[in-house]
Amino acid sequence: MRFDILTLFPETINSACNFSIMKRALNENIIQINAVNPRDYSLDKHKKVDDTPYGGGAGMLLSCQPYLDALKNIEKKEKSKTIIMSPQGKIFNQETAKELAKYEQIIIICGHYEGFDQRILEKTQAEEISIGDFVLTGGEFPALCIIDSVTRLLDGVLGDEESVKFDSHFDGLLEHPHYTKPRIYDNLAVPDILLSGNHEKIKEWRRLQQFIVTKLKRPDLFYKFLKSNISDYDKKILKNNNLF
Amino acid sequence: MRFDILTLFPETINSACNFSIMKRALNENIIQINAVNPRDYSLDKHKKVDDTPYGGGAGMLLSCQPYLDALKNIEKKEKSKTIIMSPQGKIFNQETAKELAKYEQIIIICGHYEGFDQRILEKTQAEEISIGDFVLTGGEFPALCIIDSVTRLLDGVLGDEESVKFDSHFDGLLEHPHYTKPRIYDNLAVPDILLSGNHEKIKEWRRLQQFIVTKLKRPDLFYKFLKSNISDYDKKILKNNNLF
Repeated sequence: MRFDILTLFPETINSACNFSIMKRALNENIIQINAVNPRDYSLDKHKKVDDTPYGGGAGMLLSCQPYLDALKNIEKKEKSKTIIMSPQGKIFNQETAKELAKYEQIIIICGHYEGFDQRILEKTQAEEISIGDFVLTGGEFPALCIIDSVTRLLDGVLGDEESVKFDSHFDGLLEHPHYTKPRIYDNLAVPDILLSGNHEKIKEWRRLQQFIVTKLKRPDLFYKFLKSNISDYDKKILKNNNLF
Repeated sequence: MRFDILTLFPETINSACNFSIMKRALNENIIQINAVNPRDYSLDKHKKVDDTPYGGGAGMLLSCQPYLDALKNIEKKEKSKTIIMSPQGKIFNQETAKELAKYEQIIIICGHYEGFDQRILEKTQAEEISIGDFVLTGGEFPALCIIDSVTRLLDGVLGDEESVKFDSHFDGLLEHPHYTKPRIYDNLAVPDILLSGNHEKIKEWRRLQQFIVTKLKRPDLFYKFLKSNISDYDKKILKNNNLF
């Protein structure tokens, strides 16, 4: 998977990708990251990339020419998708990450300052994606979230153990609580059941915790889950605990 | 505002904060960023920070000792808030950013690997915050989003012009389209109204565009807006365009 990132801060993208799982994926050439600075394509003698808005108003807008020329110079793969980080976009979630992971190339346009000239959107037909309903200085951090979440889905990035764990994650429920050594830390003990060695009971307890935690913290997800195709195993746990 | 970030990758946080508006806020000492590595507090001879889960299962969990000892060593300000980046948390939005901006200190605990020992949550009573419903390798990128969005809200960070613009942003509606020079780019022209010089008409057109864009792209936000206290000015535009 090749990620081409249009950003005024390519060094931020490059240094931030160089850790943990993304670093491993880069080293193993499962992903390539190409951060492109539209400023390098500006035809303005001062390498300007922004200008004042027509119709007046505060702030500066990113101009068509440097962004569209930078885009033209990116070598396109066959299965290529262009997205633009925008507060106006569809809210990014795990489903979108899975969709994006099917491509060979994702081109991400990062905004900055007050916004883009609308014609950048019209010319590129890029899909607008938002990371959430909050205001950021630029598209760089959201782009990093997308690169990370998509990279984790690519073949060979996570080890088998991690993948198994990951598959069970986000089946629409939050995770059960986890405990590691020591058995007692500052008077807080690990629940006895986890030390019992009874794997069937542990599995059931963990599943029940998932239901309880999700119902408490994210009732929206819990009720969505209840409306889905629930297995008999889950139904029994839910009924035995008056959750269904 | 002081941000203390508990992370296994302090250099990622430090280098990623060092650009654009956050860099300015750092230079002007409006914010301070203190990235702390729990590994430095590990009492394990190999400086281990994680261990296998009780009850079995894949992956490694972050242990209590290094995280809680690192926390104890952070100097607390009077108005201090501790949050933990977690897929289980409340979804972060602009309202939460505004709440956080009221503190003098925000301590952010970043997860990594498969998760935390539950007792870290219980001991710290940290508020769990999630950036969205997708899976990431660690809490670092979400933490950066939070630092950026909160920093923008602090006095003196944005210039007057930027602030004015910003205040009008996220009143629950998406933004209108923006255009900058040139007037015609590759056959695409700026809408005539923006060149008219009639500021009253431009204001009205932009407001209408906000309604249209929001209704199209984020009907959830649009209907929420319709249920709010709408000004007579807005009502007139909505009615004249059959949007109300």
